[in-house]
Amino acid sequence: MAKIVRNQPIRVPRIPSEVRRLVEGRNFGFVATLMPDGSPQVSPVWIDIEDDYILVNTVKGRVKDRNTDRDPRVSIAIADSANPYKYCEIRGRVVEKTTIGAVEHIDKMAKKYLGVTRFEGPREGRLIWRIKPEKIFIR
Amino acid sequence: MAKIVRNQPIRVPRIPSEVRRLVEGRNFGFVATLMPDGSPQVSPVWIDIEDDYILVNTVKGRVKDRNTDRDPRVSIAIADSANPYKYCEIRGRVVEKTTIGAVEHIDKMAKKYLGVTRFEGPREGRLIWRIKPEKIFIR
Repeated sequence: MAKIVRNQPIRVPRIPSEVRRLVEGRNFGFVATLMPDGSPQVSPVWIDIEDDYILVNTVKGRVKDRNTDRDPRVSIAIADSANPYKYCEIRGRVVEKTTIGAVEHIDKMAKKYLGVTRFEGPREGRLIWRIKPEKIFIR
Repeated sequence: MAKIVRNQPIRVPRIPSEVRRLVEGRNFGFVATLMPDGSPQVSPVWIDIEDDYILVNTVKGRVKDRNTDRDPRVSIAIADSANPYKYCEIRGRVVEKTTIGAVEHIDKMAKKYLGVTRFEGPREGRLIWRIKPEKIFIR
């Protein structure tokens, strides 16, 4: 496990437990992607963790999905909903996008965030992004 | 006033009242800037509004400040703390950075967000960014 130094990046093979708890909690991620002209774009997302990857469930063709098809570099800030002054930033890349299990996964996210058993939004075109963290900051 | 079409950008001379209310509320902004290699970086910020500009109070030399010295393009997502499914995204540019009034302004932000009369964090090197919105999305 990497040593945590406040305001210093952690270069990750492993996600530290403090960050894992933030991702596992009912906290939103704010994910930034790059528009075609290189300018930034940000949107809130539901987030999940699997091994040392961050998962985001989205829909094929959305702006952030088209952006990461072109340039896979992303950054996600996650603040603790109980104390927004505690947060982390994860910079990395979308290394995989899969439709497999993506509908079941959005239901799992709806359970986590809304407490319901079935996601009421779009089920067509769902994708799970697998994000490989490269640098993590905890503040 | 621009007509609000959900999921369609509003090209702004004026900030719509719905967005104004989000900025005036005790809601965090998540601001994305561009690192030297063009990759995105995101962090939570306190936000303010003056006329049709968004204000962010930061400290000279921080990563996001160095980033916007190099490339002024930013995006800020603001979610309603009472209902995070209601949010807006403001894409634009940092058009001015000033030290004038920046210490008084961070005290004003501490009052807004923490209910205290004096900000307890760094007072040296404070800067107010003035961000000119170019496109606004409401979702």
